[in-house]
Amino acid sequence: MKKTIIVFSGDLDRVLAAFVIANGAAAMGDDVVMFFTFWGLNSIRRPEKVSAKKGFLQAMFGWMMPRGADKLGLSKMNFGGLGASMMKIVMRQARVDPLPEMIKTAREQGIKMIACTMSMDVMGITREELIDGLDFAGVASYLGEADEANVNLFI
Amino acid sequence: MKKTIIVFSGDLDRVLAAFVIANGAAAMGDDVVMFFTFWGLNSIRRPEKVSAKKGFLQAMFGWMMPRGADKLGLSKMNFGGLGASMMKIVMRQARVDPLPEMIKTAREQGIKMIACTMSMDVMGITREELIDGLDFAGVASYLGEADEANVNLFI
Amino acid sequence: MKKTIIVFSGDLDRVLAAFVIANGAAAMGDDVVMFFTFWGLNSIRRPEKVSAKKGFLQAMFGWMMPRGADKLGLSKMNFGGLGASMMKIVMRQARVDPLPEMIKTAREQGIKMIACTMSMDVMGITREELIDGLDFAGVASYLGEADEANVNLFI
Repeated sequence: MKKTIIVFSGDLDRVLAAFVIANGAAAMGDDVVMFFTFWGLNSIRRPEKVSAKKGFLQAMFGWMMPRGADKLGLSKMNFGGLGASMMKIVMRQARVDPLPEMIKTAREQGIKMIACTMSMDVMGITREELIDGLDFAGVASYLGEADEANVNLFI
Repeated sequence: MKKTIIVFSGDLDRVLAAFVIANGAAAMGDDVVMFFTFWGLNSIRRPEKVSAKKGFLQAMFGWMMPRGADKLGLSKMNFGGLGASMMKIVMRQARVDPLPEMIKTAREQGIKMIACTMSMDVMGITREELIDGLDFAGVASYLGEADEANVNLFI
Repeated sequence: MKKTIIVFSGDLDRVLAAFVIANGAAAMGDDVVMFFTFWGLNSIRRPEKVSAKKGFLQAMFGWMMPRGADKLGLSKMNFGGLGASMMKIVMRQARVDPLPEMIKTAREQGIKMIACTMSMDVMGITREELIDGLDFAGVASYLGEADEANVNLFI
């Protein structure tokens, strides 16, 4: 049955948890919908700088927020990125895919990834700044998906 | 169908997400129950000082915690309130209602807002310190509502 | 009906919320499954030092992370542990069980507590370092339980 996950957090550890669950469910044959909102949008930003016309504050948000899955920090013990680097190493030692690889797998498995348009408007993130293969929709769309699902998580 | 949301967090961004989902669901005709617990209680505190007899530690918690929806900080990049102020400005630019307005809408839409009595006891928050129109109940009441709902989120 | 809770967080306040809900549901006759992952594993570590052969980074993670339910900090206003101590005092004043007691109750009520093996591998946490009475499984097992439940929370 369908599963939905709201990816609100932009912390590496939380986003990893979201993709482990999403990819696991898809591998078991479930339809999976991920809805990226607020800081969660950072996990699906392109790593390269994309020029986009923005207001001053939106530009500041864009400049201060991490650009993509490889730049996220841990929610705890990050120590300016050191914790995230340590986490990537121990993940590799445990043969767990890194986050960018998990995102690729999610797309290959046909997981529906929706970027929240309201959050994009508020934070001034444009479609060009996000990775390919996304849908764009709002809360009504999320609720429609959740009504068809038997597991709905907010991460 | 019914939706329930536990508002555990008292961070502006997370509480906003809770009310966007709640108001969206109510607008689509769903029954919605919000259960405010721990830091989430701060989002439904009255902004004005309310005199209440408290123990010393409860008074300290009350004094250190933000008083109401307009005083909440961001979970990330808050910088002593600057981030929250920036967030309010970019929300206004994107024509998104501010949080106090969203709470008003929630009440007008008949969303059931329950304050967790156990958290109130622990943190020493009295009924007089909270906004009007709330219900007061514990975890059994939450579980009863959740059993009737098809989407249950913990935020 | 069955309830599942993913305990991702290792913050005292969030873990408390998880056990209040879990114990409440079990007391009402529900089957309850708690799935401990990432920082949540800290809440089910043994308080005593357990010798285990580990890589350098895993040893560092183990050394920096709190050892057990009594050592967790608050997600907000922790002030190096002072906030957690204050929380324990106000909980006692409100006659709310401390977390180690809640965990004991959970086991007595037959709540199924699963430690996430992938997180254990990544963070280098061994079975010997965790409390008794746990199951050990991965995401597929969680999804199987969630499919049978009507309330699934991520905390």
